[in-house]
Amino acid sequence: MLASMWTVKVVSLGVVALSLSLELLFWLFSHRRSERATNKVLFFPSEVACVEHIFSPTLPHSHVCSLPHGVDTSFSRLLRYILSACSSLDLCLFSFSNMDLSRAVLLLHSRGVTVRVLTDKVYSAINGSQIGVLRKAGICVRCDVSAVHMHHKFAVVDGRMLITGSLNWTLTAVQSNMENIIITEEPDLVQPFLKEFCRLWGLNDSAQYLNSVTD
Amino acid sequence: MLASMWTVKVVSLGVVALSLSLELLFWLFSHRRSERATNKVLFFPSEVACVEHIFSPTLPHSHVCSLPHGVDTSFSRLLRYILSACSSLDLCLFSFSNMDLSRAVLLLHSRGVTVRVLTDKVYSAINGSQIGVLRKAGICVRCDVSAVHMHHKFAVVDGRMLITGSLNWTLTAVQSNMENIIITEEPDLVQPFLKEFCRLWGLNDSAQYLNSVTD
Repeated sequence: MLASMWTVKVVSLGVVALSLSLELLFWLFSHRRSERATNKVLFFPSEVACVEHIFSPTLPHSHVCSLPHGVDTSFSRLLRYILSACSSLDLCLFSFSNMDLSRAVLLLHSRGVTVRVLTDKVYSAINGSQIGVLRKAGICVRCDVSAVHMHHKFAVVDGRMLITGSLNWTLTAVQSNMENIIITEEPDLVQPFLKEFCRLWGLNDSAQYLNSVTD
Repeated sequence: MLASMWTVKVVSLGVVALSLSLELLFWLFSHRRSERATNKVLFFPSEVACVEHIFSPTLPHSHVCSLPHGVDTSFSRLLRYILSACSSLDLCLFSFSNMDLSRAVLLLHSRGVTVRVLTDKVYSAINGSQIGVLRKAGICVRCDVSAVHMHHKFAVVDGRMLITGSLNWTLTAVQSNMENIIITEEPDLVQPFLKEFCRLWGLNDSAQYLNSVTD
């Protein structure tokens, strides 16, 4: 009787120790994996390479493009992060003239992803800006109506992934300048940007703005 | 004899279970705390307020300054993060004309902190740039010698804290524009920036550059 009581106690403690060990291992593993998966840095200028395979993975493009193929560059990685959007893409951009990035945004829009673009009023009107192209395609665009510059360069993918840095969405920034981009899913970083986007989006609602001007 | 053997086994398993529980709790605690402590976001424009108390905490300044006092702003927080440097400050800045930020860097230099400044050649020569002031004070400054823009706006404090975003170190950026800054101690984000700084620092060593030109 005494021995069987001891056996029950030993087995119980063993189960507790085992479950705690497994829980600890799971935490260690998920902690390390989430750190690796969610915090990335890209530096520019990016190596110039063909990005057609990112837009049409199944087609052979080597015969229509003289650039190197199948090269993994900072720019191709950036495109992939943006194209990973499934439900929403919020863009808050000072300058947007890069045609490949514009193509990616248009592709997401055609897939039914909800795209919102907030940009600087002055820079949206410069030669080569893609803002007019996006607007014509039916994408919801708002220009900052204040007298100062809306100097942000960030994107929030599906409300969970933040892409931000020094890089304006221009060809010069991608191919020439020394620039950086952070890609992160850390909630402490993503959430403030999402909140700020919503604040600025509301602030630059042209209907509300017109009402306040005419009040 | 049998009972004492069982006792040893039970006690051993109990110790294992207890130590694993404590380890798990420690991990949970440190994981949550590090997340909270190391990822911060600041948005600009910053409220304009007196920052004298940050430079000289013990002196009363209300009589010499007409700005609001004791107000915690995005800019005062940025200054505090920079002034927290104990051993090193690596700056990689496109444009640097903000006098309060310059004062903070000079103060760190006077305290013996090793300051390195890498900046854009063109913007270092514009009116109001603080680069000449830093150089005259004996701070090690290197200008990017390439034909393109060194468009980064980041700082690494003590090799462990990264400050990066859209904000150039100018008065307009701080007080007028819509800007962002991330402050993080996540190694996955800090280490690539530190590595990139060292790469660019070596690349823009004027002695090496002159040698390669005269070769």
